Amino acid sequence: MNQDDLKALVGKKAVDWISDGMTIGLGTGSTVRYMVEALAEKIKKEHLTITGVVTSKETANLATSLGIPLKSVDEIDYIDLTIDGADEISSDFQGIKGGGAALLFEKIVAKNSKKNLWIVDQSKLTKDLGNFPLPVEVIPYGSEKIFERFEAQNFAPTFRTVEDGTKVKTDSENYIIDLHLKKIDDPFKLAKYLKQQIGVVEHGLFLDTVNTIIVGYPDGPKIFEAR
Amino acid sequence: MNQDDLKALVGKKAVDWISDGMTIGLGTGSTVRYMVEALAEKIKKEHLTITGVVTSKETANLATSLGIPLKSVDEIDYIDLTIDGADEISSDFQGIKGGGAALLFEKIVAKNSKKNLWIVDQSKLTKDLGNFPLPVEVIPYGSEKIFERFEAQNFAPTFRTVEDGTKVKTDSENYIIDLHLKKIDDPFKLAKYLKQQIGVVEHGLFLDTVNTIIVGYPDGPKIFEAR
Repeated sequence: MNQDDLKALVGKKAVDWISDGMTIGLGTGSTVRYMVEALAEKIKKEHLTITGVVTSKETANLATSLGIPLKSVDEIDYIDLTIDGADEISSDFQGIKGGGAALLFEKIVAKNSKKNLWIVDQSKLTKDLGNFPLPVEVIPYGSEKIFERFEAQNFAPTFRTVEDGTKVKTDSENYIIDLHLKKIDDPFKLAKYLKQQIGVVEHGLFLDTVNTIIVGYPDGPKIFEAR
Repeated sequence: MNQDDLKALVGKKAVDWISDGMTIGLGTGSTVRYMVEALAEKIKKEHLTITGVVTSKETANLATSLGIPLKSVDEIDYIDLTIDGADEISSDFQGIKGGGAALLFEKIVAKNSKKNLWIVDQSKLTKDLGNFPLPVEVIPYGSEKIFERFEAQNFAPTFRTVEDGTKVKTDSENYIIDLHLKKIDDPFKLAKYLKQQIGVVEHGLFLDTVNTIIVGYPDGPKIFEAR
Protein backbone atom coordinates (compact mmCIF):
# COMPACT_ATOMS: atom_id res chain seq x y z
CA MET A 1 0.00 0.00 0.00
CA ASN A 2 1.34 3.40 -0.96
CA GLN A 3 0.64 6.67 0.87
CA ASP A 4 -2.35 7.43 -1.30
CA ASP A 5 -3.90 4.04 -0.51
CA LEU A 6 -3.49 4.74 3.20
CA LYS A 7 -5.19 8.13 2.80
CA ALA A 8 -8.11 6.48 1.00
CA LEU A 9 -8.32 3.86 3.75
CA VAL A 10 -8.72 6.36 6.61
CA GLY A 11 -10.86 8.72 4.52
CA LYS A 12 -13.41 5.94 3.93
CA LYS A 13 -13.16 4.69 7.52
CA ALA A 14 -13.95 8.14 8.96
CA VAL A 15 -17.55 8.19 7.72
CA ASP A 16 -18.35 5.44 10.28
CA TRP A 17 -18.40 8.31 12.82
CA ILE A 18 -21.17 10.12 10.91
CA SER A 19 -24.84 9.41 11.58
CA ASP A 20 -28.18 10.83 10.48
CA GLY A 21 -28.93 14.47 11.36
CA MET A 22 -25.38 15.50 12.10
CA THR A 23 -23.70 18.77 11.19
CA ILE A 24 -20.22 17.83 9.97
CA GLY A 25 -17.19 20.06 9.58
CA LEU A 26 -15.42 19.15 6.35
CA GLY A 27 -11.67 19.73 6.42
CA THR A 28 -9.35 20.36 3.50
CA GLY A 29 -6.72 18.30 1.72
CA SER A 30 -6.03 15.07 -0.13
CA THR A 31 -7.09 12.74 2.69
CA VAL A 32 -10.28 14.70 3.38
CA ARG A 33 -11.13 14.39 -0.30
CA TYR A 34 -11.58 10.63 0.12
CA MET A 35 -13.76 11.20 3.18
CA VAL A 36 -16.01 13.72 1.42
CA GLU A 37 -16.48 11.32 -1.51
CA ALA A 38 -17.29 8.46 0.88
CA LEU A 39 -19.70 10.73 2.78
CA ALA A 40 -21.57 11.62 -0.41
CA GLU A 41 -21.98 7.89 -1.17
CA LYS A 42 -23.13 7.14 2.37
CA ILE A 43 -25.71 9.98 2.27
CA LYS A 44 -27.19 8.56 -0.94
CA LYS A 45 -27.13 4.91 0.14
CA GLU A 46 -28.52 5.45 3.65
CA HIS A 47 -30.74 8.48 2.84
CA LEU A 48 -29.10 10.60 5.54
CA THR A 49 -29.80 14.23 6.36
CA ILE A 50 -26.36 15.77 6.81
CA THR A 51 -25.23 19.41 6.82
CA GLY A 52 -21.63 20.13 5.87
CA VAL A 53 -19.62 23.13 7.09
CA VAL A 54 -16.62 23.77 4.90
CA THR A 55 -13.10 25.00 5.66
CA SER A 56 -12.05 26.15 2.19
CA LYS A 57 -13.28 27.08 -1.26
CA GLU A 58 -11.62 23.87 -2.45
CA THR A 59 -13.76 21.63 -0.21
CA ALA A 60 -16.85 23.77 -0.86
CA ASN A 61 -16.49 23.12 -4.60
CA LEU A 62 -15.98 19.39 -4.06
CA ALA A 63 -18.90 19.00 -1.64
CA THR A 64 -21.23 21.03 -3.87
CA SER A 65 -20.31 18.94 -6.91
CA LEU A 66 -21.20 15.79 -4.91
CA GLY A 67 -24.54 17.21 -3.74
CA ILE A 68 -23.71 17.56 -0.03
CA PRO A 69 -25.82 20.40 1.51
CA LEU A 70 -23.62 23.12 3.00
CA LYS A 71 -24.00 25.89 5.54
CA SER A 72 -21.63 28.56 6.79
CA VAL A 73 -20.24 28.19 10.31
CA ASP A 74 -22.26 31.33 11.12
CA GLU A 75 -25.56 29.72 10.14
CA ILE A 76 -25.43 26.74 12.54
CA ASP A 77 -25.56 26.47 16.34
CA TYR A 78 -22.58 24.16 16.55
CA ILE A 79 -20.83 21.43 14.58
CA ASP A 80 -21.25 17.88 15.90
CA LEU A 81 -18.03 16.57 14.43
CA THR A 82 -15.29 17.94 12.22
CA ILE A 83 -13.20 15.54 10.15
CA ASP A 84 -9.93 16.95 8.91
CA GLY A 85 -6.41 15.93 8.01
CA ALA A 86 -3.19 16.98 9.71
CA ASP A 87 0.38 17.51 8.56
CA GLU A 88 2.04 16.36 11.75
CA ILE A 89 0.76 14.84 15.02
CA SER A 90 3.02 14.56 18.04
CA SER A 91 3.02 11.71 20.55
CA ASP A 92 0.93 13.85 22.92
CA PHE A 93 -1.63 14.50 20.17
CA GLN A 94 -0.80 18.10 19.32
CA GLY A 95 -0.86 18.99 15.64
CA ILE A 96 0.47 21.10 12.83
CA LYS A 97 -1.96 21.90 10.03
CA GLY A 98 -1.97 24.30 7.10
CA GLY A 99 0.01 22.50 4.41
CA GLY A 100 -3.02 23.20 2.24
CA ALA A 101 -3.09 26.89 3.30
CA ALA A 102 -6.58 26.48 4.84
CA LEU A 103 -5.48 26.67 8.47
CA LEU A 104 -7.51 29.77 9.37
CA PHE A 105 -10.93 28.45 8.37
CA GLU A 106 -9.94 24.96 9.61
CA LYS A 107 -9.22 26.42 13.03
CA ILE A 108 -12.43 28.48 13.08
CA VAL A 109 -14.45 25.35 12.23
CA ALA A 110 -12.54 23.17 14.73
CA LYS A 111 -13.17 25.74 17.47
CA ASN A 112 -16.93 25.53 16.88
CA SER A 113 -17.01 21.71 16.84
CA LYS A 114 -18.00 19.44 19.73
CA LYS A 115 -15.59 16.76 18.51
CA ASN A 116 -12.61 16.82 16.16
CA LEU A 117 -11.52 13.72 14.26
CA TRP A 118 -8.26 13.75 12.31
CA ILE A 119 -7.47 11.28 9.56
CA VAL A 120 -3.85 10.72 8.58
CA ASP A 121 -1.52 8.16 7.08
CA GLN A 122 1.18 6.77 9.34
CA SER A 123 3.84 9.18 7.99
CA LYS A 124 2.21 12.09 9.86
CA LEU A 125 2.98 10.69 13.34
CA THR A 126 6.07 12.10 15.01
CA LYS A 127 7.55 12.36 18.50
CA ASP A 128 7.91 16.15 18.54
CA LEU A 129 6.38 18.77 16.28
CA GLY A 130 8.45 20.95 13.97
CA ASN A 131 9.90 18.76 11.25
CA PHE A 132 6.96 19.86 9.10
CA PRO A 133 7.26 23.61 8.38
CA LEU A 134 4.84 25.56 10.58
CA PRO A 135 2.54 27.78 8.50
CA VAL A 136 1.73 31.29 9.72
CA GLU A 137 -1.01 33.29 7.98
CA VAL A 138 -0.09 36.98 7.82
CA ILE A 139 -1.63 40.22 6.55
CA PRO A 140 0.21 41.16 3.31
CA TYR A 141 0.78 44.80 4.43
CA GLY A 142 3.81 44.63 6.70
CA SER A 143 4.53 40.97 5.95
CA GLU A 144 8.18 41.67 4.99
CA LYS A 145 8.61 43.23 8.44
CA ILE A 146 7.15 40.16 10.16
CA PHE A 147 9.41 38.01 8.00
CA GLU A 148 12.44 40.00 9.23
CA ARG A 149 11.32 39.53 12.84
CA PHE A 150 10.97 35.77 12.29
CA GLU A 151 14.45 35.72 10.78
CA ALA A 152 15.83 37.52 13.84
CA GLN A 153 14.19 34.81 15.99
CA ASN A 154 15.98 32.11 13.92
CA PHE A 155 12.65 30.70 12.75
CA ALA A 156 14.07 30.13 9.22
CA PRO A 157 11.01 31.64 7.50
CA THR A 158 10.07 31.27 3.84
CA PHE A 159 7.15 32.84 2.02
CA ARG A 160 5.01 30.13 0.46
CA THR A 161 4.94 30.61 -3.31
CA VAL A 162 3.44 28.98 -6.37
CA GLU A 163 5.53 27.72 -9.30
CA ASP A 164 6.03 31.16 -10.88
CA GLY A 165 7.37 32.56 -7.60
CA THR A 166 4.36 34.70 -6.66
CA LYS A 167 3.22 34.43 -3.07
CA VAL A 168 0.40 32.03 -2.24
CA LYS A 169 -2.81 33.85 -1.23
CA THR A 170 -5.18 32.18 1.23
CA ASP A 171 -8.98 32.20 0.95
CA SER A 172 -8.79 35.39 3.07
CA GLU A 173 -6.25 36.98 0.67
CA ASN A 174 -3.39 36.72 3.17
CA TYR A 175 0.15 35.32 2.77
CA ILE A 176 1.62 32.18 4.33
CA ILE A 177 5.06 32.26 5.95
CA ASP A 178 6.41 28.75 6.68
CA LEU A 179 8.72 28.43 9.68
CA HIS A 180 11.38 25.72 9.33
CA LEU A 181 11.87 25.01 13.02
CA LYS A 182 12.91 21.33 12.91
CA LYS A 183 11.87 20.83 16.56
CA ILE A 184 9.35 22.82 18.59
CA ASP A 185 10.22 22.50 22.28
CA ASP A 186 7.18 24.32 23.68
CA PRO A 187 4.28 24.50 21.21
CA PHE A 188 2.05 26.41 23.65
CA LYS A 189 4.62 29.14 24.21
CA LEU A 190 5.28 29.45 20.48
CA ALA A 191 1.55 29.54 19.69
CA LYS A 192 0.99 32.43 22.11
CA TYR A 193 4.00 34.32 20.79
CA LEU A 194 2.94 33.97 17.17
CA LYS A 195 -0.70 34.95 17.66
CA GLN A 196 0.31 38.06 19.64
CA GLN A 197 2.35 39.44 16.73
CA ILE A 198 0.77 42.39 14.94
CA GLY A 199 -0.12 41.24 11.42
CA VAL A 200 -0.30 37.54 12.29
CA VAL A 201 -3.84 36.30 11.65
CA GLU A 202 -3.37 32.66 12.69
CA HIS A 203 -0.81 29.88 12.83
CA GLY A 204 -0.84 26.16 12.15
CA LEU A 205 -0.42 24.90 15.71
CA PHE A 206 -3.64 23.08 16.65
CA LEU A 207 -3.22 22.44 20.37
CA ASP A 208 -5.58 20.41 22.58
CA THR A 209 -7.89 20.25 19.59
CA VAL A 210 -8.23 16.67 18.33
CA ASN A 211 -10.34 14.06 20.15
CA THR A 212 -9.93 11.03 17.91
CA ILE A 213 -7.29 10.13 15.33
CA ILE A 214 -7.56 7.49 12.65
CA VAL A 215 -4.13 6.48 11.40
CA GLY A 216 -3.66 4.51 8.21
CA TYR A 217 -1.20 1.61 8.39
CA PRO A 218 -0.61 -0.99 5.69
CA ASP A 219 -2.42 -3.59 7.87
CA GLY A 220 -5.43 -1.35 8.42
CA PRO A 221 -6.61 1.75 10.26
CA LYS A 222 -5.80 2.23 13.96
CA ILE A 223 -7.86 4.46 16.24
CA PHE A 224 -6.34 6.66 18.94
CA GLU A 225 -8.44 8.51 21.51
CA ALA A 226 -6.58 11.72 22.32
CA ARG A 227 -8.73 13.55 24.86
CA MET B 1 -13.30 77.29 18.82
CA ASN B 2 -15.31 74.23 17.88
CA GLN B 3 -13.98 70.65 17.77
CA ASP B 4 -13.08 70.94 14.10
CA ASP B 5 -11.00 74.08 14.78
CA LEU B 6 -9.12 72.19 17.51
CA LYS B 7 -8.42 69.32 15.12
CA ALA B 8 -7.07 71.77 12.53
CA LEU B 9 -4.92 73.41 15.20
CA VAL B 10 -3.12 70.19 16.25
CA GLY B 11 -3.00 68.89 12.67
CA LYS B 12 -1.06 71.95 11.55
CA LYS B 13 1.11 72.00 14.70
CA ALA B 14 2.22 68.37 14.15
CA VAL B 15 4.25 69.14 11.02
CA ASP B 16 6.76 70.99 13.26
CA TRP B 17 8.04 67.51 14.15
CA ILE B 18 8.83 66.70 10.50
CA SER B 19 12.17 67.57 8.95
CA ASP B 20 13.95 66.96 5.65
CA GLY B 21 14.69 63.36 4.69
CA MET B 22 12.24 61.74 7.08
CA THR B 23 10.01 58.75 6.42
CA ILE B 24 6.65 59.64 7.97
CA GLY B 25 3.79 57.30 8.86
CA LEU B 26 0.53 58.98 7.90
CA GLY B 27 -2.41 57.97 10.06
CA THR B 28 -6.10 58.04 9.19
CA GLY B 29 -9.01 60.25 10.17
CA SER B 30 -10.33 63.78 10.28
CA THR B 31 -7.50 65.23 12.41
CA VAL B 32 -4.82 63.53 10.32
CA ARG B 33 -6.38 65.08 7.23
CA TYR B 34 -5.35 68.54 8.44
CA MET B 35 -1.83 67.30 9.14
CA VAL B 36 -1.45 65.73 5.68
CA GLU B 37 -2.61 68.95 4.03
CA ALA B 38 -0.18 71.00 6.16
CA LEU B 39 2.61 68.54 5.33
CA ALA B 40 2.00 68.92 1.59
CA GLU B 41 2.27 72.70 1.98
CA LYS B 42 5.43 72.42 4.07
CA ILE B 43 7.07 70.09 1.52
CA LYS B 44 6.43 72.61 -1.27
CA LYS B 45 7.43 75.69 0.70
CA GLU B 46 10.63 74.23 2.21
CA HIS B 47 11.52 71.90 -0.70
CA LEU B 48 11.66 68.84 1.58
CA THR B 49 12.30 65.24 0.61
CA ILE B 50 9.72 63.27 2.57
CA THR B 51 8.44 59.70 2.11
CA GLY B 52 4.97 58.90 3.42
CA VAL B 53 3.83 55.47 4.59
CA VAL B 54 0.06 55.20 4.67
CA THR B 55 -2.35 53.40 6.99
CA SER B 56 -5.44 53.29 4.77
CA LYS B 57 -6.70 53.64 1.22
CA GLU B 58 -8.38 56.88 2.38
CA THR B 59 -5.08 58.50 3.40
CA ALA B 60 -3.31 57.05 0.35
CA ASN B 61 -5.81 58.78 -1.92
CA LEU B 62 -5.47 62.08 -0.04
CA ALA B 63 -1.65 62.03 0.03
CA THR B 64 -1.43 61.07 -3.64
CA SER B 65 -3.78 63.90 -4.62
CA LEU B 66 -1.51 66.33 -2.73
CA GLY B 67 1.66 65.00 -4.38
CA ILE B 68 3.26 63.41 -1.30
CA PRO B 69 5.53 60.51 -2.40
CA LEU B 70 4.43 57.21 -0.81
CA LYS B 71 5.99 53.83 -0.08
CA SER B 72 4.61 50.66 1.44
CA VAL B 73 5.74 49.75 4.95
CA ASP B 74 7.44 46.75 3.31
CA GLU B 75 9.60 48.96 1.07
CA ILE B 76 11.30 50.99 3.82
CA ASP B 77 13.76 50.09 6.58
CA TYR B 78 11.82 51.87 9.28
CA ILE B 79 9.55 54.84 9.81
CA ASP B 80 11.10 57.82 11.60
CA LEU B 81 7.83 59.18 12.95
CA THR B 82 4.17 58.27 12.60
CA ILE B 83 1.53 60.95 13.15
CA ASP B 84 -1.93 59.62 13.83
CA GLY B 85 -5.13 60.48 15.66
CA ALA B 86 -6.70 58.58 18.55
CA ASP B 87 -10.25 58.05 19.74
CA GLU B 88 -9.46 57.95 23.44
CA ILE B 89 -6.28 58.49 25.49
CA SER B 90 -6.14 57.55 29.15
CA SER B 91 -4.28 59.44 31.87
CA ASP B 92 -1.45 56.89 31.61
CA PHE B 93 -1.19 57.47 27.85
CA GLN B 94 -2.77 54.24 26.60
CA GLY B 95 -5.08 54.56 23.64
CA ILE B 96 -8.09 53.29 21.76
CA LYS B 97 -7.99 53.70 17.98
CA GLY B 98 -10.06 52.36 15.13
CA GLY B 99 -13.06 54.67 14.95
CA GLY B 100 -12.11 55.04 11.29
CA ALA B 101 -11.82 51.25 10.86
CA ALA B 102 -8.11 51.54 9.95
CA LEU B 103 -6.75 50.09 13.20
CA LEU B 104 -4.97 47.12 11.62
CA PHE B 105 -2.77 49.08 9.21
CA GLU B 106 -2.38 51.85 11.81
CA LYS B 107 -1.00 49.30 14.27
CA ILE B 108 1.30 47.73 11.68
CA VAL B 109 2.70 51.17 10.79
CA ALA B 110 2.99 52.22 14.47
CA LYS B 111 4.89 49.01 15.24
CA ASN B 112 7.48 49.83 12.56
CA SER B 113 7.95 53.44 13.70
CA LYS B 114 10.75 54.79 15.89
CA LYS B 115 8.40 57.42 17.32
CA ASN B 116 4.64 57.77 17.45
CA LEU B 117 2.97 61.17 17.72
CA TRP B 118 -0.79 61.40 18.33
CA ILE B 119 -2.83 64.50 17.60
CA VAL B 120 -6.20 64.92 19.30
CA ASP B 121 -8.65 67.55 20.43
CA GLN B 122 -9.22 67.83 24.19
CA SER B 123 -12.40 65.68 24.09
CA LYS B 124 -10.28 62.53 23.51
CA LEU B 125 -8.59 62.67 26.93
CA THR B 126 -10.11 60.48 29.61
CA LYS B 127 -9.13 58.96 32.95
CA ASP B 128 -9.81 55.32 32.02
CA LEU B 129 -10.30 53.74 28.61
CA GLY B 130 -13.60 52.19 27.55
CA ASN B 131 -16.15 54.94 27.16
CA PHE B 132 -15.30 54.92 23.45
CA PRO B 133 -16.40 51.57 21.93
CA LEU B 134 -13.38 49.32 21.42
CA PRO B 135 -13.11 48.13 17.80
CA VAL B 136 -12.11 44.54 17.09
CA GLU B 137 -11.28 43.51 13.51
CA VAL B 138 -12.51 39.97 12.80
CA ILE B 139 -12.46 37.49 9.93
CA PRO B 140 -15.99 37.41 8.42
CA TYR B 141 -16.14 33.58 8.44
CA GLY B 142 -17.10 32.67 11.99
CA SER B 143 -17.72 36.29 13.04
CA GLU B 144 -21.22 35.51 14.36
CA LYS B 145 -19.62 32.91 16.65
CA ILE B 146 -17.06 35.43 17.94
CA PHE B 147 -19.93 37.88 18.46
CA GLU B 148 -21.76 35.28 20.59
CA ARG B 149 -18.60 34.71 22.65
CA PHE B 150 -18.24 38.47 23.21
CA GLU B 151 -21.90 38.60 24.29
CA ALA B 152 -21.29 35.79 26.78
CA GLN B 153 -18.39 37.85 28.17
CA ASN B 154 -20.75 40.86 28.63
CA PHE B 155 -18.70 42.91 26.17
CA ALA B 156 -21.93 44.41 24.68
CA PRO B 157 -20.75 43.87 21.08
CA THR B 158 -22.24 45.46 17.97
CA PHE B 159 -21.24 44.88 14.37
CA ARG B 160 -20.26 48.17 12.77
CA THR B 161 -22.58 48.92 9.85
CA VAL B 162 -23.08 51.59 7.22
CA GLU B 163 -26.39 53.44 6.80
CA ASP B 164 -28.13 50.65 4.88
CA GLY B 165 -27.31 48.13 7.63
CA THR B 166 -24.62 46.18 5.78
CA LYS B 167 -21.50 45.43 7.77
CA VAL B 168 -18.51 47.74 7.38
CA LYS B 169 -15.60 46.08 5.57
CA THR B 170 -12.06 47.14 6.42
CA ASP B 171 -9.28 47.64 3.86
CA SER B 172 -8.47 43.94 4.51
CA GLU B 173 -12.11 42.91 3.85
CA ASN B 174 -12.76 42.06 7.48
CA TYR B 175 -15.61 43.10 9.82
CA ILE B 176 -15.44 45.40 12.83
CA ILE B 177 -17.15 44.44 16.10
CA ASP B 178 -17.35 47.36 18.56
CA LEU B 179 -17.28 46.47 22.26
CA HIS B 180 -19.26 48.83 24.49
CA LEU B 181 -17.29 48.28 27.68
CA LYS B 182 -17.75 51.68 29.41
CA LYS B 183 -14.64 51.10 31.56
CA ILE B 184 -11.64 48.86 30.87
CA ASP B 185 -10.02 47.92 34.16
CA ASP B 186 -7.00 46.10 32.73
CA PRO B 187 -6.28 47.05 29.09
CA PHE B 188 -3.24 44.72 28.90
CA LYS B 189 -5.21 41.67 30.02
CA LEU B 190 -8.06 42.49 27.64
CA ALA B 191 -5.64 43.07 24.73
CA LYS B 192 -4.04 39.66 25.24
CA TYR B 193 -7.41 37.94 25.54
CA LEU B 194 -8.79 39.53 22.37
CA LYS B 195 -5.74 38.88 20.18
CA GLN B 196 -5.65 35.20 21.25
CA GLN B 197 -9.20 34.59 19.97
CA ILE B 198 -9.40 32.55 16.78
CA GLY B 199 -10.75 34.83 14.04
CA VAL B 200 -9.65 38.07 15.72
CA VAL B 201 -7.14 39.84 13.48
CA GLU B 202 -6.46 42.88 15.66
CA HIS B 203 -8.07 45.18 18.22
CA GLY B 204 -8.04 48.91 18.87
CA LEU B 205 -6.04 48.92 22.11
CA PHE B 206 -2.75 50.71 21.37
CA LEU B 207 -0.72 50.09 24.52
CA ASP B 208 2.71 51.58 25.29
CA THR B 209 2.69 52.94 21.75
CA VAL B 210 2.57 56.72 21.77
CA ASN B 211 5.63 58.86 22.60
CA THR B 212 4.27 62.38 22.19
CA ILE B 213 0.72 63.74 22.23
CA ILE B 214 -0.42 67.12 20.95
CA VAL B 215 -3.76 68.07 22.48
CA GLY B 216 -5.87 70.87 21.09
CA TYR B 217 -7.35 73.26 23.65
CA PRO B 218 -9.20 76.51 22.88
CA ASP B 219 -6.17 78.46 24.17
CA GLY B 220 -3.71 76.54 21.98
CA PRO B 221 -2.01 73.15 21.62
CA LYS B 222 -0.41 71.46 24.63
CA ILE B 223 2.36 68.86 24.32
CA PHE B 224 2.59 65.76 26.52
CA GLU B 225 5.61 63.45 26.50
CA ALA B 226 4.30 59.95 27.22
CA ARG B 227 7.36 57.66 27.20
